Amino acid sequence: MRADARRNRARVLEAAEAVFAARGISASTEEIAHRAGVGIGTVFRHFPTKEALLEAILLERVARLGETARSLATAADPGAALFDLFTHMVEEAATKKTYVEALADAALDSRIARSRAGQEAVQALGALLDRAQEAGAVRDDIGVAELIALVVGASRTAEHAGLDRAVLARTLQVVFDGLRAVDRARS
Amino acid sequence: MRADARRNRARVLEAAEAVFAARGISASTEEIAHRAGVGIGTVFRHFPTKEALLEAILLERVARLGETARSLATAADPGAALFDLFTHMVEEAATKKTYVEALADAALDSRIARSRAGQEAVQALGALLDRAQEAGAVRDDIGVAELIALVVGASRTAEHAGLDRAVLARTLQVVFDGLRAVDRARS
Repeated sequence: MRADARRNRARVLEAAEAVFAARGISASTEEIAHRAGVGIGTVFRHFPTKEALLEAILLERVARLGETARSLATAADPGAALFDLFTHMVEEAATKKTYVEALADAALDSRIARSRAGQEAVQALGALLDRAQEAGAVRDDIGVAELIALVVGASRTAEHAGLDRAVLARTLQVVFDGLRAVDRARS
Repeated sequence: MRADARRNRARVLEAAEAVFAARGISASTEEIAHRAGVGIGTVFRHFPTKEALLEAILLERVARLGETARSLATAADPGAALFDLFTHMVEEAATKKTYVEALADAALDSRIARSRAGQEAVQALGALLDRAQEAGAVRDDIGVAELIALVVGASRTAEHAGLDRAVLARTLQVVFDGLRAVDRARS
């Protein structure tokens, strides 16, 4: 891809993410093109369908998540790093939305999980979880599948329209205390 | 409504719930009519739109939940009763589905929450939570809003296509340990 085509693609993705967050995934391609400052033909050239656009957005988000998890692998306090990352993912879901709607599409959801970015993100999260468990900060009877299930659940809760931020914070506290319940898990 | 009309309405609702669970909410009205053993005109007479049908299903489910919560209000062990009810709601979400798709519609979601059945269910859940907290089985720094947020999160996780049942069970264990973290909440 030429440099200007790559730049346009990135601008469309960024615009689409913002427009979907504001209006849901039923937002029009015209609005996305307008916000990106490109013609509608450019949007369709890079992303022939809305599903392709949505998939690209989610893949990029998953790739960023994997990078962040990898960068935290050497954190001095892996437990705190894991809880911070958990909170960050949930807050991103709350502000950027699109997850609930997109992941209701099981085929898309499964393509993201099987993608290279998806696999790498799971691996990086798993490595961080291992370190947090070795440090005694997280119970050791769960694996990365349970961690992801908890993040997905909390993210979907957070995405819920009109959810009070204080309620969300207390909800996360319950989940974190459950994750920390090291003694209980061993007994 | 005449008795036979009421009976037909109930049959359509039951059929729709089963068909939506099996095929998602994009299932056809023809299939629902066929399963209910009524004409397609009968389906449309009771439920002019698919949204009306979906709303009726969810309202009925919420009403049943409220009844169950009320019947548990005098349980000898309110903590165990609350955790059992939590598990039951999540398992129902996993088998009957339709939540994720339906609740992506914020307007529908808000109508359910404001309905009489919705308000009564919240009240009954709140009463059960109070009793569990008085018995020392659940931390006392959360309210019914946090409880519902946790149920919604776990339900959406459970509804997720292909989620391993053992992973779901361990995920619920983490949430329950977090809810039980009475000492931590007080410290």
